[in-house]
Amino acid sequence: MPAVTETLARFASTLSYEDIPPEAVRIAKEVTLDCLGVALAGSVDGVGRIVKSVVRKMGGRPEATVIGAPWKTSAPNAALANGAMGHALDYDDMGMSVGHPTVPVLPAVLALGERIHASGKEVLTAFIAGLEVEGKLGAAGRELYSQGFHSTSIYGTVGAAAACARLLRLTPSQTQMALGIAASLASGLKDNFGTMTKPLHPGHSAWGGVVSALLAQEGYTARADVLEAPYGFMDAFVGKGRWDAEKVVTDLGHPFHVLQPGITLKKYPCCGGNHRALDALYALRQQTSFTWEQVEKVVVESGPVLPLVLQYTFPDTGYQGKFSLHFNVAAAIVLGHVVRDTFTDAVVRDPRIQEMMRRVEWKVTAETGDILHQGTPVTVYLKDGRVLRNPGDFIKGDPQHPLSRQEILDKFSDNARLVLSRPALLKTIDLVLDLESLPDIGLVMRYLSARPRRDGKQG
Amino acid sequence: MPAVTETLARFASTLSYEDIPPEAVRIAKEVTLDCLGVALAGSVDGVGRIVKSVVRKMGGRPEATVIGAPWKTSAPNAALANGAMGHALDYDDMGMSVGHPTVPVLPAVLALGERIHASGKEVLTAFIAGLEVEGKLGAAGRELYSQGFHSTSIYGTVGAAAACARLLRLTPSQTQMALGIAASLASGLKDNFGTMTKPLHPGHSAWGGVVSALLAQEGYTARADVLEAPYGFMDAFVGKGRWDAEKVVTDLGHPFHVLQPGITLKKYPCCGGNHRALDALYALRQQTSFTWEQVEKVVVESGPVLPLVLQYTFPDTGYQGKFSLHFNVAAAIVLGHVVRDTFTDAVVRDPRIQEMMRRVEWKVTAETGDILHQGTPVTVYLKDGRVLRNPGDFIKGDPQHPLSRQEILDKFSDNARLVLSRPALLKTIDLVLDLESLPDIGLVMRYLSARPRRDGKQG
Repeated sequence: MPAVTETLARFASTLSYEDIPPEAVRIAKEVTLDCLGVALAGSVDGVGRIVKSVVRKMGGRPEATVIGAPWKTSAPNAALANGAMGHALDYDDMGMSVGHPTVPVLPAVLALGERIHASGKEVLTAFIAGLEVEGKLGAAGRELYSQGFHSTSIYGTVGAAAACARLLRLTPSQTQMALGIAASLASGLKDNFGTMTKPLHPGHSAWGGVVSALLAQEGYTARADVLEAPYGFMDAFVGKGRWDAEKVVTDLGHPFHVLQPGITLKKYPCCGGNHRALDALYALRQQTSFTWEQVEKVVVESGPVLPLVLQYTFPDTGYQGKFSLHFNVAAAIVLGHVVRDTFTDAVVRDPRIQEMMRRVEWKVTAETGDILHQGTPVTVYLKDGRVLRNPGDFIKGDPQHPLSRQEILDKFSDNARLVLSRPALLKTIDLVLDLESLPDIGLVMRYLSARPRRDGKQG
Repeated sequence: MPAVTETLARFASTLSYEDIPPEAVRIAKEVTLDCLGVALAGSVDGVGRIVKSVVRKMGGRPEATVIGAPWKTSAPNAALANGAMGHALDYDDMGMSVGHPTVPVLPAVLALGERIHASGKEVLTAFIAGLEVEGKLGAAGRELYSQGFHSTSIYGTVGAAAACARLLRLTPSQTQMALGIAASLASGLKDNFGTMTKPLHPGHSAWGGVVSALLAQEGYTARADVLEAPYGFMDAFVGKGRWDAEKVVTDLGHPFHVLQPGITLKKYPCCGGNHRALDALYALRQQTSFTWEQVEKVVVESGPVLPLVLQYTFPDTGYQGKFSLHFNVAAAIVLGHVVRDTFTDAVVRDPRIQEMMRRVEWKVTAETGDILHQGTPVTVYLKDGRVLRNPGDFIKGDPQHPLSRQEILDKFSDNARLVLSRPALLKTIDLVLDLESLPDIGLVMRYLSARPRRDGKQG
């Protein structure tokens, strides 16, 4: 058994900015901007309102910005709140081996970085180290849905700890302890998808990453090989014999996880499991115009794991709607789009959508391929006898079909404008896209706090 | 499938002090006193020093006492610190279905109780509700060690949330949400036993219990049936088909878990897996006097799960020593006792103990009985040919062989004197043993903070 914990710790703690190719830095900055945008939008969602209220009442040393709030708190509490808000809409990025790579790690790095006045380069290095650790663990395991767990927060807690350890410049051995502590704080049940608890998962990961690194910095101990030990982290969460230790430690940073397999930026604010079907549907609609009334039925095909994720056939709430293939297909056909405002209780109850949902059929095949790479073929049967079919084999926004720089900026602006003034929004874009030049991460964080607006509403 | 989450939530949120028999209250007060004593001793341990330092730097609204510290912090942070310190020495109580029932729940109840100025009766009611919820879940499952998890913190997080929900007087439906949130915060790997991360587990549970209840109070949501749902909490941690849902909901509070199966107070500050062997050894020694030099070998027998817990054959550190059958047997024979000061790195390296450890044989049989009820027979072979044998079939301190009131007070005093002045120590005993008369839990918590002592040392 290779020394997984030790190797990851050595990698994370010794990574320097100069080791990272410019292309990886560019992507890290883009996903940072994207995550900040969705966190700003999340801050005015129900999740954001409650999390901000609870964290505010806890108090804490005012050292780190809570996104979309006019006050600060401790780094762990800010990481908790920002992580939850970053995932509130399920609009943050996704990965090929970890559900959502950025959101458990970035809020930890930003909050701790603000506390210690880290530079943009230090933040980027720590962030990329964290993404690498969680990505390598995730790629070595299998999907965790059929184990009942949420891969984002399970791997993300360890990734966040690696990032925070790098940021604090812990030694390799202290970093090993931080990863070991974090392994015991990792949690998150997939059955809480479709409720406010799902976004709490990466918030909790970010909190755990910060706390693990702070404890390790003062000499707190964990088992040195707890990630790979028999009955340890990977055995417990992934299953004995169901993961490949060699795969974790081979080619760390060659290439960096952000480059290969890369990160997907979401075009739709709902669970990624819907995206292939949505893109297929939009493509069909572009070729052939039809109204929802003309549709007899829509058949979507997938393997057997997807239904564990998209677990609501007929959702009751907007949150559940994000995890409903039937709802997403119906909304896209009836409304012509799937946007932030689509995922409300009212839209879920729209009689047209209720009617259309009943015309959606989900054909689950026994095919046991990898959920993350599997196509989701869509066939639309029109009442006039026409049959339209698309293989649903890619997601617009994935590394092979990336969003353009303009699309990324448009998405950020559409989200950020819910909280930020136009000047603060533009300044945030400038600072984040030039993060490597920033002497202190606090200089961008201050733009993310909400200021009272002219209309009297707090952003 | 019975409605597990809903039934537990209704039970916890509607439990009133009048429903609880006086005998259950007496035991709850005794385990409270015991846990506070070990937390005071834990506050001057390495775990306590680091946890206090990290929490202090986080800051927080000064609403809850950190045991053994002269300052306060937020209720969640105090729960985190006090939970970790309560388990630092592995000297807190243990249960028949949950490893350590009190320590994940009590610190949550005390911290949140202090925040809201709850009365002693309210605290006792919430505490007993929490113990019942975690106990019922634990009894319905199997041991979690062979799954890689730590039952104390997995079940304890949900128990702590139930207790905190009761304390905040949440509705049954809000309580259901609190349990669901907590289910997604539950964590803790058994492979971190023997390191400082093990005591962090119940600290984290207590933190999670407080946070879950505070979020639920403001309307945060979780899946309403997440404990019993397919792939949910019990399926994920215990395993599909390896737990009995009926057992959770049947006879809730009839009798209360604190009465039956009851709680064991520890006589030795080490993992409970050692206790039967230690008691057997002491019994043999009382019948027949022998020195360690006279011992040829000691054979201890157990089933196959115990080695997953007592996972260090030849420990390197005092923390590992707490999870080493070889070390505990050797220390008891060489030193004649196993006390707080036994578990230091120096004692572990004592050449006499190192020598004696090599004369300990652990015979693991295939017997698959319940680890918590299994005997641990001990046979001592003396060099002169004599063979001494004890079945190792009970733990002094368990509900059938309870510690006397005087033994409980002596243990508390021995622990508490490390931090408290004699008057504060006596006052704490008086207040805790009359907890049902206390108008505000804060009145006892203030005695648990460390005041600078005459000798200039901080307690």
